[in-house]
Amino acid sequence: MMTSANETCELCQSPGGEVVHQAEFFRVVIVDDANYPGFCRVIWRDHVKEVTDLSELDRMLMMDVMWQVEQVVRDVMQPEKINLASLGNMVPHLHWHIIPRFTDDVHFPAPVWAEAKRTPSPDSLALRHEKLPLLRKKLQQHLASYT
Amino acid sequence: MMTSANETCELCQSPGGEVVHQAEFFRVVIVDDANYPGFCRVIWRDHVKEVTDLSELDRMLMMDVMWQVEQVVRDVMQPEKINLASLGNMVPHLHWHIIPRFTDDVHFPAPVWAEAKRTPSPDSLALRHEKLPLLRKKLQQHLASYT
Repeated sequence: MMTSANETCELCQSPGGEVVHQAEFFRVVIVDDANYPGFCRVIWRDHVKEVTDLSELDRMLMMDVMWQVEQVVRDVMQPEKINLASLGNMVPHLHWHIIPRFTDDVHFPAPVWAEAKRTPSPDSLALRHEKLPLLRKKLQQHLASYT
Repeated sequence: MMTSANETCELCQSPGGEVVHQAEFFRVVIVDDANYPGFCRVIWRDHVKEVTDLSELDRMLMMDVMWQVEQVVRDVMQPEKINLASLGNMVPHLHWHIIPRFTDDVHFPAPVWAEAKRTPSPDSLALRHEKLPLLRKKLQQHLASYT
């Protein structure tokens, strides 16, 4: 098994969230973000910078996993919109953000990296946080076949 | 040919950039952003909201096009990092941003939607703008087989 870990890379050295599925070449985590319950990441195992640094097969695997995660996040969280992003300017280790967005969230309709627009209602956030055990369970079920 | 156009949707009604390749199911455009020369978009033809609303084949086509565009943008623009995003909170019509990022750009290392960090040097931007004819040509060449 070839791995390429970088000693100073946060995503080589730490999980980047609560790992709900660990496969050989990637992991899926739920991000602990009080304002964005249901925020997930697909993180490639190796310290690869860009999608086009992967082989075609690896890209297909990664994106297949992405759509599984997107579908589960949609089903469980019932967001207004899904936001997807692979940025990595600060941590150039291939990882995707899958973020369920709601019209009353901190930044909507702006991206989550923009200036905050409002303080979300604690009740509304609490309802979303309550869905996390189901999200975890469904992700584990849907990703179980990826070894 | 089935199409589903939305009368109030910006991306159903206008190209969303300079069209460099128009295929049956998608188009690729270069965005006119003075601060981000080389910024491209892959825009799905139909008014579809989420990636997981597409069929598996359509998703594979779209992502295949994405990687072609990413590779050409990398080759021509030589960025520090590529940023990819599908957001659509304001325009819920499936489209991807492919943004070449540079350490001296307006927001680096923050996402382009964050607060500006600096005014980029006009010389540096001018050099990047000079690459646009080559970018246009290479995109057209690499995407020609997608009809």
